[in-house]
Amino acid sequence: MPQVSIIGTAQIPVKKRYDESLRQLGARVTRAALDDAGLERVDALYLGNMLSDELQSQKHVAALVADEAGLAGIEAMQVRATTASGAAALRVAYLAVASGMVATAVAVGVEKMSREGATQALTKALDAKKEAPDGATLISLNALAMAQYIERYQTPANAFANFAVTAHRNAQHNPNALFQSKTVTAETVLSSRFIVPPIRLYDCAPICDGAAAVVLTSAQKARQYTKTPVHILASAAASDRFRMSDRQDPLRLKASEVSAQKAFRQADLQPKDIDFFELHDAFSIMSCLQLEAVGFAQPGDGWRLAVENQIALDGAVPIATMGGLKARGHPIGATALYQICEMVQQLTGQAGQNQLPSPRIGLLQSIGGAGTAVFTHILG
Amino acid sequence: MPQVSIIGTAQIPVKKRYDESLRQLGARVTRAALDDAGLERVDALYLGNMLSDELQSQKHVAALVADEAGLAGIEAMQVRATTASGAAALRVAYLAVASGMVATAVAVGVEKMSREGATQALTKALDAKKEAPDGATLISLNALAMAQYIERYQTPANAFANFAVTAHRNAQHNPNALFQSKTVTAETVLSSRFIVPPIRLYDCAPICDGAAAVVLTSAQKARQYTKTPVHILASAAASDRFRMSDRQDPLRLKASEVSAQKAFRQADLQPKDIDFFELHDAFSIMSCLQLEAVGFAQPGDGWRLAVENQIALDGAVPIATMGGLKARGHPIGATALYQICEMVQQLTGQAGQNQLPSPRIGLLQSIGGAGTAVFTHILG
Repeated sequence: MPQVSIIGTAQIPVKKRYDESLRQLGARVTRAALDDAGLERVDALYLGNMLSDELQSQKHVAALVADEAGLAGIEAMQVRATTASGAAALRVAYLAVASGMVATAVAVGVEKMSREGATQALTKALDAKKEAPDGATLISLNALAMAQYIERYQTPANAFANFAVTAHRNAQHNPNALFQSKTVTAETVLSSRFIVPPIRLYDCAPICDGAAAVVLTSAQKARQYTKTPVHILASAAASDRFRMSDRQDPLRLKASEVSAQKAFRQADLQPKDIDFFELHDAFSIMSCLQLEAVGFAQPGDGWRLAVENQIALDGAVPIATMGGLKARGHPIGATALYQICEMVQQLTGQAGQNQLPSPRIGLLQSIGGAGTAVFTHILG
Repeated sequence: MPQVSIIGTAQIPVKKRYDESLRQLGARVTRAALDDAGLERVDALYLGNMLSDELQSQKHVAALVADEAGLAGIEAMQVRATTASGAAALRVAYLAVASGMVATAVAVGVEKMSREGATQALTKALDAKKEAPDGATLISLNALAMAQYIERYQTPANAFANFAVTAHRNAQHNPNALFQSKTVTAETVLSSRFIVPPIRLYDCAPICDGAAAVVLTSAQKARQYTKTPVHILASAAASDRFRMSDRQDPLRLKASEVSAQKAFRQADLQPKDIDFFELHDAFSIMSCLQLEAVGFAQPGDGWRLAVENQIALDGAVPIATMGGLKARGHPIGATALYQICEMVQQLTGQAGQNQLPSPRIGLLQSIGGAGTAVFTHILG
């Protein structure tokens, strides 16, 4: 199987709300990624988006963005796994190139969610028969997990605060981040209002608009386009029981664990080989559980990495190095593509003030729903 | 690249309306396809569905169906291209297996669309800014194309009637078809009411519920599971300008033409090598235009194949051999998977009274939107 490489990336600043249309944002970032790769066209476009059906009354967004980008004619389809839709699109682009059937592909993520109705649409990620009717939301399920975690491990009051502090600190130097000017301390986090207890405002990623794209080709061809191709060393996906309540242990993210293990096997790597971890910090509790599931901490110890500042840029496991979902922003279908762009920045020494000292390998993990479907990619 | 084969298929009878839930239908047909392949589990599930966001208030349907089928743990994602969503899911399953990254995959299609709101949700396949606000629907765009065709080629009144007659005749012996008891003559078609002139009731596929699934693995492994694997000789996709009104010639289905040409090149085949053609007869005019775009007729001559009965089981280009979208039914996201099941029936001599005389090669083509995205698969 041919190795797959990234030869172009593009991201637009995450904003609370863009006036440009979904197709315009998607097309703009697609063209910019192609320009970055030095390509006029690609063979296929795979698009991640979760909410356009409801918020833009628009399906068929992949073909729409392809046309708007001047790429009518190419293969175009939408790939979805709710909050991990961007990672799912990336995975299909990866599979297409790895198969040898598609020479060049662009994975695009775009989401315009700062609209009336976003919360109702997001809630469709849950079981519409057995969760949503009880009033459950993505936030309430995460709150439930966080409450159980606090109860089981008797964590201190400041256990989770550093996840937000770190993200906001790293976002300050990322020109594409939604929150660049905020100075966020543990104080700020712990005095912010409760959304669903024990989740506070700063434990949550914001509702926002954004778009990002990456261009893939085989490693063999990559050198034609760039001197610094970044390789996708692994791509893996796994699911869990759909509902958190059906899982033996809701605090163990099996899909995160299984997809990470698959990825580590593919790349012949271990957690200790990972220089930084772009995780799915939509809620602080998910960061904590992911650090444990992937193997950076024992169950019950994930929060210690935060408290001990091991998640900072100079820590043992830097996370959210450009601001993460919390502070760069989480325009759902685009999020994983933003993360890939940022990982390429880190791996090619273009991360500015947030640059890690010569990182060689980065891990990306995206969560669809409340831990239901997880995608892992390793870049190097 | 490894060749990909079909080792299991399953379909449930298309019905006007199922009481079972979407997840139950999807899980039932997934288990049945696995049983048919003699497998307990697969590595990945790719799901085609267009309308569950609106009609079931449910996203994340791939993971939901995987869990309901007892397959929690595996990779699961949803793939979409509106009315070609089933074919898009098949294509991703194909790419995953062809890449060597996924050993066994199930492509599942499921749709429950006999619900209030189906038409509004279907209309989101069109441009929400430039088509839908004018009152355009999939039917009205097809009516426009049909009117232009009649005008340009001065076709006789009965030019399109045989598309419906043939489909309904073939459906009579298909136990999974929605319409099995109807005797439909050209008279019936031509005296049926107008939906949007010149489209009459019998020119349209019905709103209905259904689910179908196919299991794929590499050709190399296929012999372990079945003595009669059917091979996917080609898989290709293409798009066109999104809006019909932006195309140089709205009567030329460029995406159909381009994806067919790609597929013919992959398989080193030509139209004359094709023994039967499962096309996207959601509207009679699309059948006609597809016959031309794929190369079975010259532009302006597609309808002649119908009038001359060349599309019948004993004709030169048999189409809709088990009833097609019109008479087997068109549960959107499931449709292409039904077609694959039927093609396997034909290619393995299990098509009953509709059996073609030892067909070797079949062509499948699925249209997303009004000719916007087209997927072509060749089986043999």
